[in-house]
Amino acid sequence: MIETPYLLFLGDAPDQLAAKVAQGIKDWRPENSVGQLRLEGCGADVGLTDMTLEEGLAAGAKTLVIGVANRGGVISDKWKAVLIEALEAGYDIASGLHNLLRDEGDLAAAAMAHGRTLFDVRIPSVAYPIANGEARTGKRCLAVGTDCSVGKMYTAMAVEKSMVERGMKATFRATGQTGILITGGGVPLDAVIADFMAGSIEYLTPDNDDDHWDLIEGQGSLHHMSYSGVSLALIHGGRPDALILCHEPTRTHMRGLPHRDLPSLEQARDTAMTMALDANPNVKMVGISVNTQHLNEEDALAYLAKVEAEMGLPTVDPFRQGADRLAEALAAV
Amino acid sequence: MIETPYLLFLGDAPDQLAAKVAQGIKDWRPENSVGQLRLEGCGADVGLTDMTLEEGLAAGAKTLVIGVANRGGVISDKWKAVLIEALEAGYDIASGLHNLLRDEGDLAAAAMAHGRTLFDVRIPSVAYPIANGEARTGKRCLAVGTDCSVGKMYTAMAVEKSMVERGMKATFRATGQTGILITGGGVPLDAVIADFMAGSIEYLTPDNDDDHWDLIEGQGSLHHMSYSGVSLALIHGGRPDALILCHEPTRTHMRGLPHRDLPSLEQARDTAMTMALDANPNVKMVGISVNTQHLNEEDALAYLAKVEAEMGLPTVDPFRQGADRLAEALAAV
Repeated sequence: MIETPYLLFLGDAPDQLAAKVAQGIKDWRPENSVGQLRLEGCGADVGLTDMTLEEGLAAGAKTLVIGVANRGGVISDKWKAVLIEALEAGYDIASGLHNLLRDEGDLAAAAMAHGRTLFDVRIPSVAYPIANGEARTGKRCLAVGTDCSVGKMYTAMAVEKSMVERGMKATFRATGQTGILITGGGVPLDAVIADFMAGSIEYLTPDNDDDHWDLIEGQGSLHHMSYSGVSLALIHGGRPDALILCHEPTRTHMRGLPHRDLPSLEQARDTAMTMALDANPNVKMVGISVNTQHLNEEDALAYLAKVEAEMGLPTVDPFRQGADRLAEALAAV
Repeated sequence: MIETPYLLFLGDAPDQLAAKVAQGIKDWRPENSVGQLRLEGCGADVGLTDMTLEEGLAAGAKTLVIGVANRGGVISDKWKAVLIEALEAGYDIASGLHNLLRDEGDLAAAAMAHGRTLFDVRIPSVAYPIANGEARTGKRCLAVGTDCSVGKMYTAMAVEKSMVERGMKATFRATGQTGILITGGGVPLDAVIADFMAGSIEYLTPDNDDDHWDLIEGQGSLHHMSYSGVSLALIHGGRPDALILCHEPTRTHMRGLPHRDLPSLEQARDTAMTMALDANPNVKMVGISVNTQHLNEEDALAYLAKVEAEMGLPTVDPFRQGADRLAEALAAV
């Protein structure tokens, strides 16, 4: 686990989009951050107090989190100077960058010299077990999708928020880099060795109170030729009691596969349920989460109503409408 | 690719079973080995000429292949002396051992000093691509299973043999350590990073002649909670035109999962076909391969006849009966 609270490093992010990770932390775990650190020329602002490294420490920050993508995959000298200063001052550093902190000799040396930790959340830091397929106590909900990047992380976090607000016990379980940085822990599933995928998800979602829900971030899609194996490992390792099907209705082909159509919602439901029932005969699909960001309000509501009628399941866009109806559906399981 | 022919190192294997890998090479690729090298106390014999390192070289051997499991996961001093001598004499060394040759400082140093290569086939040596899901030329057959270790490698190799004997173009494609050592190449799929599993299988089975068949070694089972993701990556990366369903009828539970029953043959067929049809709408299940080693001849034949009648597909034990009927079924696709 990455120690909280964070100081969020926005560096010289050219625009708001580049600071997506920092924005996610601010939106979903505002209590995890004491402030933001911006360099000259930074075009992003996630709405936290601007702080120096010293001010962050004084406010209690333990970890400097790189909340921004780096340009061209290179950790610039400008960044480097701040990162080294942070290690010297007593911060750990956490990053989801493709190029790893630990591969930068000067950062590794500074961390070593000052007894600090570099968290590269892109790669696993745990030797995960082989899955044993046993039932665990507590309940689990998995977000599955018709495609990659249709809102599975957003859905799981929104449902967690709604459940916690209504006093239910719920924990979002991150399986990707952004989710790990937001919450401080999780499994970077796309980087796990094949044999240990399902085991890593069992490890992530251990025995819990009978009335506790894990909201597991899904990855890929059982219909996505590149990543379907990862999606199946989530179903069999997660052994979910409930599934939420996530969809983005304006997509014209599977992400990264220009010649492949998306499955229909019925197909995606049937495939996911077939595989999930094999792990847990009591699993139910409880709702549908649609990312309608590319539709106007009228079209979005019409689409949601149509899907709800056709599929017979609560259908919402958690960004437009909140996830309360999905949380209610889970409460009824 | 590992350079052939091999000299097979049996070391001090206590018995024949410990030399399973060497036996596999001898059985399936006799032309790949010039002889065997045994140390004092070796209780195994795969039926090749005993040779010293020098005699092996004189007979043309390029690679010393460790064809035996090591006791307690340790490469003993007794082995080490021979392995270093082999590197000095000009051999590469290939191994499927869990503990890697490259992690032994003295072996790594000797390989470096003499310009030789250490092949640890347990771990990938290639940066595999992300799968693109595109159709390729040529045909592919994948062995799928009701469970792990039910004879998928054996089946694929037996079908390849039968196809080649009848003049068809066919190539066994190894996805596990033993198959890689037997044939000199392949993908150690269980050790591939999650995101690249399907891509590694596309890489393994590229465009080929229209009448060429890849016989792809399967792994795990879509119904095996620990490894199902690996099995699905094989189906979506392999994009097979044909499936052969492999089964071991005396197994009382899934391998390593004492509380899980095996799926029925019908279930295993339906699950595999559902997922395979998504990748290739023309895929057919062409036959069933049953490992009847734990049944007597009469029971075995009765069981095979019963399955054939129930499933309506050619059903054979390739070890008892050869794989000709499976090869015929593929020829008819």
